Amino acid sequence: MSTDVEAKRTNPASSQSEERVDWKKRKTEVKDAKKQRKADKLIKQLDKQKEQEAEDRAELERSQNKTVLGRPYTVSVALPGSVLDNAQSTELRTYLAGQIARACVVFCVDEIIVFDEEGDDVKSTEGEFTGIGKKGQACVQLARILQYLECPQYLRKWFFPKHQDLQYAGLLNPLDSPHHMRIDEESEYREGIVLDRPTKPGQGSLVNCGMRKEVRIDKQLQSGLRVTVQLNEAQNQESKISKGVVVAPHVPRSEGGLYWGYTVRLASCLSTVFTESPYKEGYDLTIGTSEKGGDMDQTALSQFNHLLVVFGGLQGLEASLDSDQNLEVTDPSVLFDIYLNTCPGQGSRTIRTEEAILISMSGLRHKITAAFSDVSTG
Amino acid sequence: MSTDVEAKRTNPASSQSEERVDWKKRKTEVKDAKKQRKADKLIKQLDKQKEQEAEDRAELERSQNKTVLGRPYTVSVALPGSVLDNAQSTELRTYLAGQIARACVVFCVDEIIVFDEEGDDVKSTEGEFTGIGKKGQACVQLARILQYLECPQYLRKWFFPKHQDLQYAGLLNPLDSPHHMRIDEESEYREGIVLDRPTKPGQGSLVNCGMRKEVRIDKQLQSGLRVTVQLNEAQNQESKISKGVVVAPHVPRSEGGLYWGYTVRLASCLSTVFTESPYKEGYDLTIGTSEKGGDMDQTALSQFNHLLVVFGGLQGLEASLDSDQNLEVTDPSVLFDIYLNTCPGQGSRTIRTEEAILISMSGLRHKITAAFSDVSTG
Ligand SMILES: C[S@@+](CC[C@H](N)C(=O)[O-])C[C@H]1O[C@@H](n2cnc3c(N)ncnc32)[C@H](O)[C@@H]1O
Ligand SMILES: C[S@@+](CC[C@H](N)C(=O)[O-])C[C@H]1O[C@@H](n2cnc3c(N)ncnc32)[C@H](O)[C@@H]1O
Repeated sequence: MSTDVEAKRTNPASSQSEERVDWKKRKTEVKDAKKQRKADKLIKQLDKQKEQEAEDRAELERSQNKTVLGRPYTVSVALPGSVLDNAQSTELRTYLAGQIARACVVFCVDEIIVFDEEGDDVKSTEGEFTGIGKKGQACVQLARILQYLECPQYLRKWFFPKHQDLQYAGLLNPLDSPHHMRIDEESEYREGIVLDRPTKPGQGSLVNCGMRKEVRIDKQLQSGLRVTVQLNEAQNQESKISKGVVVAPHVPRSEGGLYWGYTVRLASCLSTVFTESPYKEGYDLTIGTSEKGGDMDQTALSQFNHLLVVFGGLQGLEASLDSDQNLEVTDPSVLFDIYLNTCPGQGSRTIRTEEAILISMSGLRHKITAAFSDVSTG
Repeated sequence: MSTDVEAKRTNPASSQSEERVDWKKRKTEVKDAKKQRKADKLIKQLDKQKEQEAEDRAELERSQNKTVLGRPYTVSVALPGSVLDNAQSTELRTYLAGQIARACVVFCVDEIIVFDEEGDDVKSTEGEFTGIGKKGQACVQLARILQYLECPQYLRKWFFPKHQDLQYAGLLNPLDSPHHMRIDEESEYREGIVLDRPTKPGQGSLVNCGMRKEVRIDKQLQSGLRVTVQLNEAQNQESKISKGVVVAPHVPRSEGGLYWGYTVRLASCLSTVFTESPYKEGYDLTIGTSEKGGDMDQTALSQFNHLLVVFGGLQGLEASLDSDQNLEVTDPSVLFDIYLNTCPGQGSRTIRTEEAILISMSGLRHKITAAFSDVSTG
């Protein structure tokens, strides 16, 4: 090329005399240029194609991510409220409830069921307070402390008025779960309470989500209601109010892939743990725990929608069974799909329920992961 | 045969007339009898052989069982004493120490190392008591409570005089480990204290092993010493004294296949956890724990003699490292053979050390079993 250029430069006006040659050259040049353009066009096309492909791939990944992120299944843990009666002081009673809450949160448990094994038949934490002590009212107190701890700090003053069951709440270790947001933390989802403010028809309610600004939601809801809010992606920074929509409480888990705390359910006996499931289809995988169970190392889990893991109290699940009027059987293992010893070779004669939750859920964690990954990692 | 007998019976006196036949018969009979004797002998021989084989097999099994029973390896757990300073009351401080003791016992831990991460440099639980409160003296107090709990109840009055560190010992849950024997429980091994009794030369010392009878051992030892005693298989029921021999404390574990409690060691900093190992060869497999570690699900363990698992305190192992004058590195992972996240996907921002022990040891338990079984169970 440098020679061509040189030729042109040295013979600016003599191009005609060398027309043929020039033409020839020109022809080649034109041809080359054409070729080049064609190539460029092709490259551009290819680039565009690649870009499109990348975009498609990203889009696909985004949508896949959404599915991958979201956890399709739920995990429930059931235990008798009587475990509180093993505590040696009222402070330790509270502390024990906190240990159970934390154990469940660490393993992303979605539902905690507190069942009665003493025939007390309590159905909610509502109602008159009839006394606190080392014994008694264990189910209600456990349920109340679990609910208290699950509630984001900024909502507690609304939902948990002073109560003697919560007398030692100051001793409780925080759950530090993802839905316990600090004031300036950014998050797609937040828990909130619908405020008692006049709103014009057609305008949604205002919600306190523990942020500096209140959130206007898409619906008009009863004030005092606890709601899960999905904040709009684009917010007007100037506005005094944030905007969001109300979503079902499972959305942060099933779509956002976030652990979003647990619900608490009281069951009047062991059998209603199974029969009063909040899931339409019930629990499709149930695990009983006992040192008399089968060796967990020999057991793999199949996929499930709703897993239930049941723990016994001081006297094990046999005692829970004994006190249940609805159940005729005496061997707890027949109640469950799987009956597991989750700590073969234990060095203590007995494992306490609060320890058994951490131990068992830690052993099950990998088995759950394995059940939901195509290639088991062994 | 029945026809022969019948013939004899019907012709008792006519045998002569049929001598030939009889002889013939007799010959056959003799032959048959001989055959029979031969067969009987063979069968007897075979039986004897079988018996011998069975005996040999049993003997082999017995000796094999002894090896199979005995656990050839040890497990040590290290943690900073500072964990006690996270407790919200003096009662809970004691309770927390108890949680740690129980977690280690459930997973058959042989040694607990309490290391200092505050530069206090304490080496034993001996010495003057200088005050108890919510803070301070954490290492010594933790070590003392661990030792107290490990000691069989019947020996505590000898080894643990009143001490303010043990003020709330009544709140502690018992360890219920195999070496905490009840008075009438039968056991090949027992922990005891050498009594201060005059013994004739050539006679061994008397030991209180928490049984109805005292035990005469094979050696004369300093009174007040804590000893592990192997009781003789055959005991004279009439005698007022039982008989036994003193064995090394590891014998119940390494030969009897029993978990036999833990020893407690104070380390002045993180590095002496490694360097002051009581095992001649040191620890040959070391595991650091952190949420920043590698996914434990992807990790298998190799066989080891002495495993060490190290936990951090409130600020993690980074803080333990920072306070150690001997260590120049800043990344804790380089200190260990393996650095593990033992709870991938945790639902709480932070897992407390006492929880992490149960969670991690539960996850490691199966991996340890797998490392020591020929065929991994996956
Ligand atoms: C104090 S234990 C009950 C002991 C009772 N003697 C028994 O044999 O079941 C309380 C609960 O912890 C759980 N647990 C204790 N050890 C266990 C083990 N090795 N495997 C699974 N669960 C266990 C069970 O749910 C049990 O009901
Ligand atoms: C309160 S945590 C320390 C938290 C600290 N911010 C950190 O990142 O390490 C106390 C100890 O628990 C253990 N731990 C906590 N989470 C863990 C996890 N996911 N895997 C393994 N160990 C964990 C570690 O030994 C840690 O030092």
